[in-house]
Amino acid sequence: MDEVKVLAPATVSNVVCGFDCLGFALEQPFDEMTVRKIDDRAVRIINHDHFGLPTDPTKNVAGVALQSVIDAAQIDFGFEVEVTKHIKPGSGIGSSAASACGAVVAANRLLGDPFSKLELVGLAMAGEMLASGSRHADNLAPGIFGGFTLVRSTEPLDIVQLDFPPLFATVIHPQIEVKTADARAMLPTQVPLKEAVRNWSNLGSLVAGLAKADYDLIGRSMEDTIVEPVRKSLIPRFDELKSGSLASGALGGGISGSGPSVFMLSETSEIANGVAAFMENHFETTGISFQIHTSPITSKGGVVVRC
Amino acid sequence: MDEVKVLAPATVSNVVCGFDCLGFALEQPFDEMTVRKIDDRAVRIINHDHFGLPTDPTKNVAGVALQSVIDAAQIDFGFEVEVTKHIKPGSGIGSSAASACGAVVAANRLLGDPFSKLELVGLAMAGEMLASGSRHADNLAPGIFGGFTLVRSTEPLDIVQLDFPPLFATVIHPQIEVKTADARAMLPTQVPLKEAVRNWSNLGSLVAGLAKADYDLIGRSMEDTIVEPVRKSLIPRFDELKSGSLASGALGGGISGSGPSVFMLSETSEIANGVAAFMENHFETTGISFQIHTSPITSKGGVVVRC
Repeated sequence: MDEVKVLAPATVSNVVCGFDCLGFALEQPFDEMTVRKIDDRAVRIINHDHFGLPTDPTKNVAGVALQSVIDAAQIDFGFEVEVTKHIKPGSGIGSSAASACGAVVAANRLLGDPFSKLELVGLAMAGEMLASGSRHADNLAPGIFGGFTLVRSTEPLDIVQLDFPPLFATVIHPQIEVKTADARAMLPTQVPLKEAVRNWSNLGSLVAGLAKADYDLIGRSMEDTIVEPVRKSLIPRFDELKSGSLASGALGGGISGSGPSVFMLSETSEIANGVAAFMENHFETTGISFQIHTSPITSKGGVVVRC
Repeated sequence: MDEVKVLAPATVSNVVCGFDCLGFALEQPFDEMTVRKIDDRAVRIINHDHFGLPTDPTKNVAGVALQSVIDAAQIDFGFEVEVTKHIKPGSGIGSSAASACGAVVAANRLLGDPFSKLELVGLAMAGEMLASGSRHADNLAPGIFGGFTLVRSTEPLDIVQLDFPPLFATVIHPQIEVKTADARAMLPTQVPLKEAVRNWSNLGSLVAGLAKADYDLIGRSMEDTIVEPVRKSLIPRFDELKSGSLASGALGGGISGSGPSVFMLSETSEIANGVAAFMENHFETTGISFQIHTSPITSKGGVVVRC
């Protein structure tokens, strides 16, 4: 096999009380990537979208991720990748992670799958390092494994696949810019122990609720008194967006990644669509343009290989 | 029914990364309590042990807990309780919680079980308030529900029963005094966000590991970089005690409650007994006298009614 096409899905990280560790994969939107072997020990990038991402492979997330595969596999050839991104850069739903995950999964397939999923996350981290300046895996883990994942540790890398019941995500992406670095700078470096305890009690309960398929518990546990209070100022009319979504039947939700996207989780696709309808009405009053996605979360998620 | 006998078990709280929320019940040691109705709307305490606990019901944990049942049930009679404690006060394995749990479960049975388990934890909290000066439920929840419990919130009270595989605890109680107030005063009021993230990643993983019966994950997740580093100075030669227990096959463990007891969890009773043998050898070198308990953790745990 000399060429492979993959679909690399959007992912939501920082799932309310799961700041910097919890994430899940959507089925859509996704990026399309075709990766093929080339004789040169090099990486070539061809962008088919209109986002103007770099074609210099050392400055492109997929390029850096492919180079890390070349280095790790110690091969004497290279890869060309054609990318059609549908996940907007800067949307907060793992656009760079999709590029990195799609690249390493495709290259791995072309090499006969020598790397485990855990190793692929490690290789993709080079791409995330380029995009955000920090080694984090909370979007990469669901991008590779699918479903809900918890990054227990990055050094050494330790990823836990969580059991979870049927869940449906509604994600709204207001077309405003939130720089990850700015969103990081807002965070406190110290938090009151009392609030930290509250947060880990909620995260433990959320993991238990997912494992037990206890939707009430999932909803009650989606509470964040540490990050959301400081970052919500980045999202126009966040409080009304959230309270209206809950009133529409969502179990809970919050800021996706470092924003500006906001996600909500629902028990059925009908409720998720109702939440989308509310979000649409709500956001039209702001005068800010937006995109809305609804998607199931499935354990088959992650990067899909198509040939 | 005018009289009931209950066995109220010891409990371990602050389970490594589960500070102030996670707990589990042992099968032994346990306190024996006999509660009977009396005509007076009052509480009478009879102690059969040698711990010299107060017999004034307003100063006795079981007394305060019984009074809270009398008030909540709006009854016109009272209770007498005969107590034989086997769980030493101040041991860090929920001695006061056992008194409170045994009292409310017994009184509830004598009244025809009008209160739910959740309500009983709420009623028993009056006793814990007397013992420690704070409204906490992390020993009461496993004392009433059995097994592993997570207190998601105390206001409102929200308790999650966790699924877990067969596990065996080894608990050593060095006969030294650790005042809960002193152990509390050692805690930082603020913690670095980075360490808080590490802790909630571990707690989420521990809950997932318990639900999946993944013993390796349970072991890897039992890490505490917030509380244990400051409190371990209370326990003589804690580091050697822990590392030797792990070398003996324990999955992990740490300080029970606010100490001085230390617990370890193991996959089998044989390993738990091996850990006990190591602890015994280890502690004999310190010259401090001690007690060691080994016990399975079962979901049938909690207060047992023996009438």
